[in-house]
Amino acid sequence: MKNLHIVVIGGVASGPAAVAEARRTNADATITLFEKGPDISYSACEMPFLISGQIDRAERLVRYTPEAFAAKFRVDVRIHHEVESIDSTNRSITFRDLKTQKTANIRYDRLVLATGAKATVPKSLHSATKDLYVLRTLDDLRQIEKVIQKKTIRHAVVIGSGYVGLDAAWALKARGQRVTLLSPSGMLPGVLPPAMSQIVKAHLHSSGIGVRPERAVGIEKAGDGKIIAILTAEGEKIGCDFVLVATGTAPSSELGVKAGLKIGSQGGVLVDDQMRTSAQGVWACGDCTERRELVFDASIRAPLSLNAFRSGRVAGRNAARLGQGRPMTISPLVHAAALGLGTLEIAHTGWTEKEARAIGKEVVSSSIQSRTASAMAENSPVYITLVAEKGSRRLIGGQIVGGTSSAQRINVVTALIRAKGTVDDLYDVDFVYAPSLAPAHDPLFVAARTLQKSLG
Amino acid sequence: MKNLHIVVIGGVASGPAAVAEARRTNADATITLFEKGPDISYSACEMPFLISGQIDRAERLVRYTPEAFAAKFRVDVRIHHEVESIDSTNRSITFRDLKTQKTANIRYDRLVLATGAKATVPKSLHSATKDLYVLRTLDDLRQIEKVIQKKTIRHAVVIGSGYVGLDAAWALKARGQRVTLLSPSGMLPGVLPPAMSQIVKAHLHSSGIGVRPERAVGIEKAGDGKIIAILTAEGEKIGCDFVLVATGTAPSSELGVKAGLKIGSQGGVLVDDQMRTSAQGVWACGDCTERRELVFDASIRAPLSLNAFRSGRVAGRNAARLGQGRPMTISPLVHAAALGLGTLEIAHTGWTEKEARAIGKEVVSSSIQSRTASAMAENSPVYITLVAEKGSRRLIGGQIVGGTSSAQRINVVTALIRAKGTVDDLYDVDFVYAPSLAPAHDPLFVAARTLQKSLG
Repeated sequence: MKNLHIVVIGGVASGPAAVAEARRTNADATITLFEKGPDISYSACEMPFLISGQIDRAERLVRYTPEAFAAKFRVDVRIHHEVESIDSTNRSITFRDLKTQKTANIRYDRLVLATGAKATVPKSLHSATKDLYVLRTLDDLRQIEKVIQKKTIRHAVVIGSGYVGLDAAWALKARGQRVTLLSPSGMLPGVLPPAMSQIVKAHLHSSGIGVRPERAVGIEKAGDGKIIAILTAEGEKIGCDFVLVATGTAPSSELGVKAGLKIGSQGGVLVDDQMRTSAQGVWACGDCTERRELVFDASIRAPLSLNAFRSGRVAGRNAARLGQGRPMTISPLVHAAALGLGTLEIAHTGWTEKEARAIGKEVVSSSIQSRTASAMAENSPVYITLVAEKGSRRLIGGQIVGGTSSAQRINVVTALIRAKGTVDDLYDVDFVYAPSLAPAHDPLFVAARTLQKSLG
Repeated sequence: MKNLHIVVIGGVASGPAAVAEARRTNADATITLFEKGPDISYSACEMPFLISGQIDRAERLVRYTPEAFAAKFRVDVRIHHEVESIDSTNRSITFRDLKTQKTANIRYDRLVLATGAKATVPKSLHSATKDLYVLRTLDDLRQIEKVIQKKTIRHAVVIGSGYVGLDAAWALKARGQRVTLLSPSGMLPGVLPPAMSQIVKAHLHSSGIGVRPERAVGIEKAGDGKIIAILTAEGEKIGCDFVLVATGTAPSSELGVKAGLKIGSQGGVLVDDQMRTSAQGVWACGDCTERRELVFDASIRAPLSLNAFRSGRVAGRNAARLGQGRPMTISPLVHAAALGLGTLEIAHTGWTEKEARAIGKEVVSSSIQSRTASAMAENSPVYITLVAEKGSRRLIGGQIVGGTSSAQRINVVTALIRAKGTVDDLYDVDFVYAPSLAPAHDPLFVAARTLQKSLG
């Protein structure tokens, strides 16, 4: 197949990774990248830097312009082109040029779906016509930046206390805005046990960010459509003129659904360890997918930057290879993420106690408080919760909140979860000690010891 | 054995850990702790804090006074008592009361050797009668502190560029002293590859610490015995009036040697995974021992705080138990250590390329430079070298130098070395990413990727 045509749909993160790897794998292939938005190859996780004022232009987040990317990887980049359907039997797609509104078909030999995920907005807020924002794409960011620059925001309300909501609230506050975070669950973020959420909450409060437990159920608008208040389930009316909704994301898997691809329980396009979908000739990668998780073999989404890159590489490689050698495979997922809020670091990996119990697993968890360094050196508190399976003593998850270098510690837990290690293996790790860098008994060592005691 | 008598020799770190665990294991045993010095249970690694002025008294480093320790663990604590010999056949020891110089014998049922290690001073410097110091015990520290407080030091020379020498030089500089570090090897410290040593050297220089490559081969003294210069192999004369020797340590295993215990190739008392020595009824732990290492099954010393604690626990438990259940075991060692020098962090784990080649192993190493966080956030450079076995691709070691949170990353490598993981397992780790805490591609991920390429 001399003139292999590889089509990649979606240009933010996983798509470009797939294109780059496809090109490395196959110098001769024709590659076309479709992206419905105006941007490709940008760092979505760094968007709060523009809100906070740490950077000055959304374009700073762009790694490759469409032109630069096209030149570097010899790929036909079509921005403002939305793919509307896939015919996996005849290996063709229908797309619309959003500038001209014209549609056309194109044939492919190999297809990579990298359509990402989208922010979900609760129905109760759908009546908003202005002043309500999400933070998902670079275009979302540009809109937010425009309003922050133009008008004086009296009161910004962030709805949702997951990583994205916390991150956005922090950035808005850093920019000097008055910010209130609505967290009906009181979980900041949801992956932390309640006591650790309280640490985060206290940190937000002391940084001047209001945290309220109400649930938004509607908006009150002025005659011109401007939002004047959030209405809550508790009957409160929270006056505000800027609302950022961060209540979660969903995989942008509509194309896959329409094309009859197998969809997972989380709504993502199901892929195997080669990032193959259920259709011949179609791979998928990044936030639009779900795949096997390492601990309990569950099917999960991992809308994370590293997974986008890594799965994109695998999809791109396998889509571009011509059958020689073995296909590239990807290791099952462990879901791990982190967030920095000024001096406070939050990180988690694997399963929480609650999640594991919800699928019927017998687990034990225990929590400790320690320090990031020796008591005589500059140090901050650090809180760790570890979760292990009861009989096997196998580590299945961990959550950390604390000062400098706390988040890095989660990678040790992830490494051991991947190695199917037990809490005893964590206890055995030869943790480094230097008074200014870690206490003689590293917090993870203390956490392992405590969990050993709980397990008996 | 109702009146089991457990004797522990050595009171700094591993000895007290053994006593504490022995008491937890056996409420009825009689326990006696011998320590030749005036102090027990102190934090040797934090001694530089007194030199730098971060703490004001050596006593701040004492966790338990002899009296408090005796009361808490119901143990007869005999400070200023030096054990002179062990008769393991008749289960008795001879000790000297250093205050009265009287000797006596005492019988034991179970003996735990925790005599630690001592600083080694090159013969060429033995002629010094004053102004020459080592930093090993709290008493050493008190002497150093006395001279720093009393007299104006014109020029302090630190001989040796291992962790201890670097740490001491940094602390002296922080106290406002003029400091020169002699490092004939140019390895700062020896476990780092040359390019990474250069980073440390540049950091010392920019912090005002002189680093010279000469080898000290003698001293020049004034008539009153005061040191006036260090003489070097290169024929230089380095004027100075304070010399700190940090050229290494050796296990204080003389008692074991005299008692006929098996001694390892590094000079330490050989112990098995129960911390048993070759003599019935005698255990040993901490810095005076050597034992099996995890990667190549070599016999190594690990004069480190965590090993002192952990091995002390195992020795204490096994010495105190009365045969019910299984003995407690300890996992083979991975040698990992770290040091903070202001904003620079140094850490290593396992084997260096050089060490592994020296014992005939085929290894591949590769080095990368990355950042501690996203380029748009506050970040510092970080340098990582990873070492893997050639055929098996198994990780066998790593070295890290860099800014905030660099050292914590070494624990991930250690955890994987313990799990007998490969470089591919490191690549697979779901490293957390948050722009202010780590780059999208964590330095360890980049290092793994680079080593994968080197291994092919």
